[in-house]
Amino acid sequence: MDFFIDLRVYIEDTDAAGIVYYANYLKFMERARSDWLRTLGLSQARLRDEGIQFVVRRCELDLHKPARFDDALSVTAVIAHQGRASLDFKQQVFRQGQLLCEGKVRVACVDAASLKPVALPESITRTFHPSRGEQTTDGN
Amino acid sequence: MDFFIDLRVYIEDTDAAGIVYYANYLKFMERARSDWLRTLGLSQARLRDEGIQFVVRRCELDLHKPARFDDALSVTAVIAHQGRASLDFKQQVFRQGQLLCEGKVRVACVDAASLKPVALPESITRTFHPSRGEQTTDGN
Amino acid sequence: MDFFIDLRVYIEDTDAAGIVYYANYLKFMERARSDWLRTLGLSQARLRDEGIQFVVRRCELDLHKPARFDDALSVTAVIAHQGRASLDFKQQVFRQGQLLCEGKVRVACVDAASLKPVALPESITRTFHPSRGEQTTDGN
Amino acid sequence: MDFFIDLRVYIEDTDAAGIVYYANYLKFMERARSDWLRTLGLSQARLRDEGIQFVVRRCELDLHKPARFDDALSVTAVIAHQGRASLDFKQQVFRQGQLLCEGKVRVACVDAASLKPVALPESITRTFHPSRGEQTTDGN
Repeated sequence: MDFFIDLRVYIEDTDAAGIVYYANYLKFMERARSDWLRTLGLSQARLRDEGIQFVVRRCELDLHKPARFDDALSVTAVIAHQGRASLDFKQQVFRQGQLLCEGKVRVACVDAASLKPVALPESITRTFHPSRGEQTTDGN
Repeated sequence: MDFFIDLRVYIEDTDAAGIVYYANYLKFMERARSDWLRTLGLSQARLRDEGIQFVVRRCELDLHKPARFDDALSVTAVIAHQGRASLDFKQQVFRQGQLLCEGKVRVACVDAASLKPVALPESITRTFHPSRGEQTTDGN
Repeated sequence: MDFFIDLRVYIEDTDAAGIVYYANYLKFMERARSDWLRTLGLSQARLRDEGIQFVVRRCELDLHKPARFDDALSVTAVIAHQGRASLDFKQQVFRQGQLLCEGKVRVACVDAASLKPVALPESITRTFHPSRGEQTTDGN
Repeated sequence: MDFFIDLRVYIEDTDAAGIVYYANYLKFMERARSDWLRTLGLSQARLRDEGIQFVVRRCELDLHKPARFDDALSVTAVIAHQGRASLDFKQQVFRQGQLLCEGKVRVACVDAASLKPVALPESITRTFHPSRGEQTTDGN
């Protein structure tokens, strides 16, 4: 089963249309990615201390149905492709099994000071070993 | 020349990486679309009183270079396609002529209560008359 | 023991100073209040359907120590005073038992359409019965 | 006349109650303080390069009337007190001359790395010379 987190919609997430402000789904998706990394034992804070951080290079968002205040949502995070210096995530937002929103997010691994691309650290690539099935043939 | 707005990057827009948090570019782009509508004499507040509002259905964001605190940015808003019940915008973010970020945003016109699609009001379609060159052949 | 929620600091919560952007503690505190109401069986969504909602009238925030990306925080919500049409909350943010931030928030009960004050609904006042010790002598 | 900035309320600033989300007034007030510093020729980016930055230590917010989507607001920033290592601001938000919201914000000058208090740089204290009337007798 895909990795997912549960979260609640608060007033801060909504807008005057009475629905979740669309840009906030990107925040929800980042929460899922962060928790997923932490679950894998990869601390972004520690990566940053090592001079490495992740930045979003590209994202796509398809909004099918609106979420509203107080909704209980689930947000998935799955790696669709692993490059040398980037990860492509496929992410979905559900409310009681109903798909509300889908996103594709490309996260690049960069030097924390220069923000220039660097290869994914071995602690990460090791985690996505082929046996986990998350890698493409050219992903390593 | 394309419609654009000038804006300033404040601390609220940045994150711990020292750069503008990527989802915030979507806010910047919405500000440009809102100001553009207002410039055309189209009040979104009045549209809402008439039971119509705009919601974002789809967006893509390509982040080329980061913006930082205190940067002065320009954000464009151009209609790439006009559908029967939606508008496709192409938007760019510049810092002193340098392209930092590009987005494509599809905005749907919906009934404010049901959030179901409705045709763009004539006040809008009239504004994008073919002579303005913003329409595609099937756009009307 | 006071009601509290646990939450995680994500990149979205931080700013270029590398710490949680101070206004975001108000969001954290609102999440605690919302969850506390839900725990009591009081749905804000349902209250809104009944034409009632809560708005913040006043708040104070004291920031003692900064929280950072990836920190695990606890946020309390305690009623300090119950008025006829408002509730005063005292709230604190902790990281591993260390107090980072304190707030006082006055929430008014208003008519959802006019935003004019209305008395707290009985479903709320009943919940804070004196035996729970959350009421002041003049609070009812 | 007090320093002020004009700004527009966008959808991003509102919540499901149809009004500006209260914590966002703190963002508006920070924009005014930032622009005011820039007007004085004090670049926060440059201060940060010099190892100094400002952090908010305390704030109070009184919300009198709500602002709504598309409202044109003015936000003032006035120094109420100048300490050795902090500045107290008094700030107000107006819509067409009507006071919507008031805030008091204490901003501390800190070392950018340790976040420990440091004396206000002379470039700042010089700016608020007694003749400007913004200083208290014990402020220097």
